[in-house]
Amino acid sequence: MTHAASAGGPIVGVLGGMGPGATADFYAKLVRATPAATDQDHLRTLIWSDPSISDRTEALLFDGASPLPQLVSGLRLLEDAGAALIAMPCSTAHAYLPELRRTARVPIVSMVEATVDRLGPDTRSGATVGLLATSGTVCTGLYQQAFGARGVRCLVPSAPLQEDVMQAVRLVKAGRLDIAGRALEGPAAELVDAGAQTIVAACTELPLVLGAAASGVGVFDATAALVEDVLALAAALRYEFDKESTCGNAFV
Amino acid sequence: MTHAASAGGPIVGVLGGMGPGATADFYAKLVRATPAATDQDHLRTLIWSDPSISDRTEALLFDGASPLPQLVSGLRLLEDAGAALIAMPCSTAHAYLPELRRTARVPIVSMVEATVDRLGPDTRSGATVGLLATSGTVCTGLYQQAFGARGVRCLVPSAPLQEDVMQAVRLVKAGRLDIAGRALEGPAAELVDAGAQTIVAACTELPLVLGAAASGVGVFDATAALVEDVLALAAALRYEFDKESTCGNAFV
Repeated sequence: MTHAASAGGPIVGVLGGMGPGATADFYAKLVRATPAATDQDHLRTLIWSDPSISDRTEALLFDGASPLPQLVSGLRLLEDAGAALIAMPCSTAHAYLPELRRTARVPIVSMVEATVDRLGPDTRSGATVGLLATSGTVCTGLYQQAFGARGVRCLVPSAPLQEDVMQAVRLVKAGRLDIAGRALEGPAAELVDAGAQTIVAACTELPLVLGAAASGVGVFDATAALVEDVLALAAALRYEFDKESTCGNAFV
Repeated sequence: MTHAASAGGPIVGVLGGMGPGATADFYAKLVRATPAATDQDHLRTLIWSDPSISDRTEALLFDGASPLPQLVSGLRLLEDAGAALIAMPCSTAHAYLPELRRTARVPIVSMVEATVDRLGPDTRSGATVGLLATSGTVCTGLYQQAFGARGVRCLVPSAPLQEDVMQAVRLVKAGRLDIAGRALEGPAAELVDAGAQTIVAACTELPLVLGAAASGVGVFDATAALVEDVLALAAALRYEFDKESTCGNAFV
């Protein structure tokens, strides 16, 4: 911890830029969800937004360059600057979470676990959710497995409609939020027709254009779930942090 | 430059957290204003959002603790991680810009200069603008002097209505965006009645609640002006950066 980590509680590190709009959305939601009356009640946050990180879906599906070296480099930057926990607001990048956790010196919050845990209480075993995510995320099966372990069916769009989801993601990344939402109407309707009781917006680009309701069912925002888990872990670390500070003083 | 600064153009450093909502707004505007078709066209950005920085208005007006040591510490963090230019989305903190520039190894963009320069073309000498900013910013006279140097009159609210502006800033910092805008109605109306042809939202909390029009005149967003100057400087640095890379290759 070389910088500024001596006061003010744990620093939240954000491994972001995948894409940058999703990172901006994550940080805005983190700020809004933090119980705070003044600036000083908020969490110190270091955001490394690196949009040059190799495309995750390209790497997972089409033998594109692996984003892992850039992810590890960003992780090191955040750790060296004093981050006490890491959030990565990109579902597709979670394909690399096991490797990242093996090399990390601090905990990395999982957006997949956050989503499944926080949707869980409303999703009894036997329930059905519909997944809107990148093709990379869909192919890794991360969400399907995590939901499956809870007895929750997780539907994904058919191949042509999955292509519409990718088109929506690309439109958000290109700043075309005005038309991106429309590309999601077909995939969302297909999932609801197949029995989905909730749509999970698992790609962090999607909450930017998908309202609270799609095709008549609720939309669950994976970014918001990640925010809640980050706040919970930061609170736990702050408790440890304060305890250490107090103990330290007691022995001076 | 210890990290990740070897590819992808200059890194934008953001000395933020004053407040965190304003920093989130700045980054969202930077992303939206960047001409980009894919993630990889965006700027790499490192945001140090430190809401624990001592209150700027308290320091300037009421002998509160100086924020300068924390600002310098944040600046060092950003520089050490490879930032090639710095933006500070907080007008009041610009009272410390001369000291920060003296110690900085990279350029720090001025939000005051950005605002006056970019509002300038629409503001002929003899024009009148109205300033909505913190009491700290108003008292430093930074905006009044910069506008004055261009022959532009810069009006500020009367003392009781300036207190309403501070109340609006505090409400935004407390997340009460729903009622913060109303506190600005009186000050904005007073400025317009006194002859202001444009309202300058110079505190970065204010664009979050002040629409494009207030009391019938246009609102100029200082955060958006800072974004434009950051993009212009990053483009200039990227040109230098690319030239250096090319030259480097030519001699290998």
